[in-house]
Amino acid sequence: MEPVFLGAVTILALLEQAYFSLQVIYARRKYSVSPPSTTGPAEFNRVYRAQANCSEYFPLFITALWTSGIFFSEGVSSLCGLLYLYGRLQYFWGYASAAQGRLAPLYFCANVLWALIGCSALGVFLSFSKIYLDVDVRQTASAALGLH
Amino acid sequence: MEPVFLGAVTILALLEQAYFSLQVIYARRKYSVSPPSTTGPAEFNRVYRAQANCSEYFPLFITALWTSGIFFSEGVSSLCGLLYLYGRLQYFWGYASAAQGRLAPLYFCANVLWALIGCSALGVFLSFSKIYLDVDVRQTASAALGLH
Amino acid sequence: MEPVFLGAVTILALLEQAYFSLQVIYARRKYSVSPPSTTGPAEFNRVYRAQANCSEYFPLFITALWTSGIFFSEGVSSLCGLLYLYGRLQYFWGYASAAQGRLAPLYFCANVLWALIGCSALGVFLSFSKIYLDVDVRQTASAALGLH
Repeated sequence: MEPVFLGAVTILALLEQAYFSLQVIYARRKYSVSPPSTTGPAEFNRVYRAQANCSEYFPLFITALWTSGIFFSEGVSSLCGLLYLYGRLQYFWGYASAAQGRLAPLYFCANVLWALIGCSALGVFLSFSKIYLDVDVRQTASAALGLH
Repeated sequence: MEPVFLGAVTILALLEQAYFSLQVIYARRKYSVSPPSTTGPAEFNRVYRAQANCSEYFPLFITALWTSGIFFSEGVSSLCGLLYLYGRLQYFWGYASAAQGRLAPLYFCANVLWALIGCSALGVFLSFSKIYLDVDVRQTASAALGLH
Repeated sequence: MEPVFLGAVTILALLEQAYFSLQVIYARRKYSVSPPSTTGPAEFNRVYRAQANCSEYFPLFITALWTSGIFFSEGVSSLCGLLYLYGRLQYFWGYASAAQGRLAPLYFCANVLWALIGCSALGVFLSFSKIYLDVDVRQTASAALGLH
């Protein structure tokens, strides 16, 4: 069964990056900053750096999303993924208007990313216990909680 | 059955990035631009920016390639992947000789990337329909077209 | 059976990138370089470029790690992964203290990455032979060596 929710969040992430790239192209035209130059007026620099930061974190996000989704839970990871993408949109718009405006959404995104890394670590640990130590923590926990 | 064609395109993509990185190293020597500096004569800046742009898009490309390959079609995705890598080579060489030379191959690569994102979205939608709505669009379409 | 060792190395890679990002934040504070600016005293520039280089190679590393791990061998890939992450740590610390200090670990990391790409290529070739040419090179080699 394909992980359709991870797939859907991944596509949204790609579309968001495409949107950020287009904003840089518009900013290049508006402030007359032609490639290969990457600096210009402060307004341009903020849009450029916002996109660069989102691009830099994109691989970390996708990696954490799928590791957490495969080893821990597709539902939890997809939900975190949506929150992250929402946070990145706020970050981009906030940074584009003022350097200060990037901070709150940046902390939010960092926290969501930490949650995904934490879920990944927990999931890898649970899989390791099950495969190599023959201890199925998930099932034991469910049984202890009287879930079945 | 492992997706060998996606694997092969992925290896080609890694080799292409290695080639671009080596070109930056040669350009650093030729124009005497020592790290951590990243700017120098216009010739160096173009090579540096060409590689930076390819690196920035590498994760988007790999993500779209595999999402499209897993959810939609390995063959179609691998073919798009080869076109993209060919376009990136033209882009790099074009940009290295003149800023204007990057444009045509860049639009080509962007279109191929859009195709991969479109195939990914279609594939995720088809998988979702099949798993959660119990509607197998692929099979229905084949039947309607008299393919079996 | 989930590839828990690839998962574990992936989590370590994410944690290492988080550590590098935090070092840039500390360097920004120490040398008073506020975003969107990305240049300052040489000490800051080196830390910034070290992190940028690690970020740029992160997607290549993760891609090669998993391609090699899926198509060739999880054990070999995970071991190479640990060596790479160790090399990147040495690179970051070396570069932060002097531009010259980045070179030895950079060559080491490049070699490990080449090994991962080589293993990926070998693995894809072996899978291709098995699926499409009906030649199981692994088994033939094991038999020839009297391993079973």
